[in-house]
Amino acid sequence: MSIYKNSGMSLSFTNQRRAILLVSALITIMVWSFSLWARTNDAIPYPAGYRQWAHVMSALIGPQSPAFALNGGIHHIYANEKGLEGYRTGRFPDGSVLVADFLETRESAGITTEGPRRRIDVMLKDSRRYSETGGWGFEQFRGDSQTDRMTTAESATKCFACHGQQKERDSVVSRFRK
Amino acid sequence: MSIYKNSGMSLSFTNQRRAILLVSALITIMVWSFSLWARTNDAIPYPAGYRQWAHVMSALIGPQSPAFALNGGIHHIYANEKGLEGYRTGRFPDGSVLVADFLETRESAGITTEGPRRRIDVMLKDSRRYSETGGWGFEQFRGDSQTDRMTTAESATKCFACHGQQKERDSVVSRFRK
Repeated sequence: MSIYKNSGMSLSFTNQRRAILLVSALITIMVWSFSLWARTNDAIPYPAGYRQWAHVMSALIGPQSPAFALNGGIHHIYANEKGLEGYRTGRFPDGSVLVADFLETRESAGITTEGPRRRIDVMLKDSRRYSETGGWGFEQFRGDSQTDRMTTAESATKCFACHGQQKERDSVVSRFRK
Repeated sequence: MSIYKNSGMSLSFTNQRRAILLVSALITIMVWSFSLWARTNDAIPYPAGYRQWAHVMSALIGPQSPAFALNGGIHHIYANEKGLEGYRTGRFPDGSVLVADFLETRESAGITTEGPRRRIDVMLKDSRRYSETGGWGFEQFRGDSQTDRMTTAESATKCFACHGQQKERDSVVSRFRK
């Protein structure tokens, strides 16, 4: 009997521990899910379909430029419909998205062609959400990835340190080539 | 009286000459108008709004290339909706328009930027009208002009001599960069 009694007490203790573990696990999952949800909702979405948006302009950064290490190669700027309105009027409405597409280049017999994608830089206009940085949110996606984000709060501040100098042009450096 | 008579005859003769001249002038104007109408209707129209079409790909032609004299600088290819379908399927439907935008380049401190437009090259797909050249019509517009056409029947044949080698790809050399 004592064996059963002990077994009973032991089982009850195990169940209690299991219940605590289960609740802890549930709380952990809930907190993690909420944090993921919050992060996902806060994040600038990948600009799906930008390759068919209007092409604003292009430039090439060669080895002689101090920007070569980070930005070397060819880059093209694309804008969605609202972004285009911004280039026309000088004020980018909320919802404007601009994408800088950074590609490596290959050179052969004097002809430079486009190589693999290094990353894309994205600017999203939301004047309330990004009021600290001229109304612009900044994000970068590595290579062809739609999820590998490269921008931290600190690097976003750096983006704006440079873009923000273009006060007359709503913090946008590029111009739409006619 | 004789004076009047003579004058009458002389006037009549002048009127006759005037009538002949007028008819000749009218015929000339009609023939010229018809020829202009035929030419205008035959001509590939300037691809208005192509700067907001999808950007297919880009390349740079440098001084080391034998193509530099004619095509040196950066060029971008643009496609209308039907053209995009062609890049996806490999068969370009009638109405497809492709534009190659040739620009001079400027280089400073390792950064190459876009300069003035040299010309645009246009390809229009119309399988019946251009059955002799793979279904493609070819045209070029000088600089920013929408009327200064550079292509003759002879140069269009030259365009096709090269494009036509791309049999598997409906005579199109470029590919849509992902």
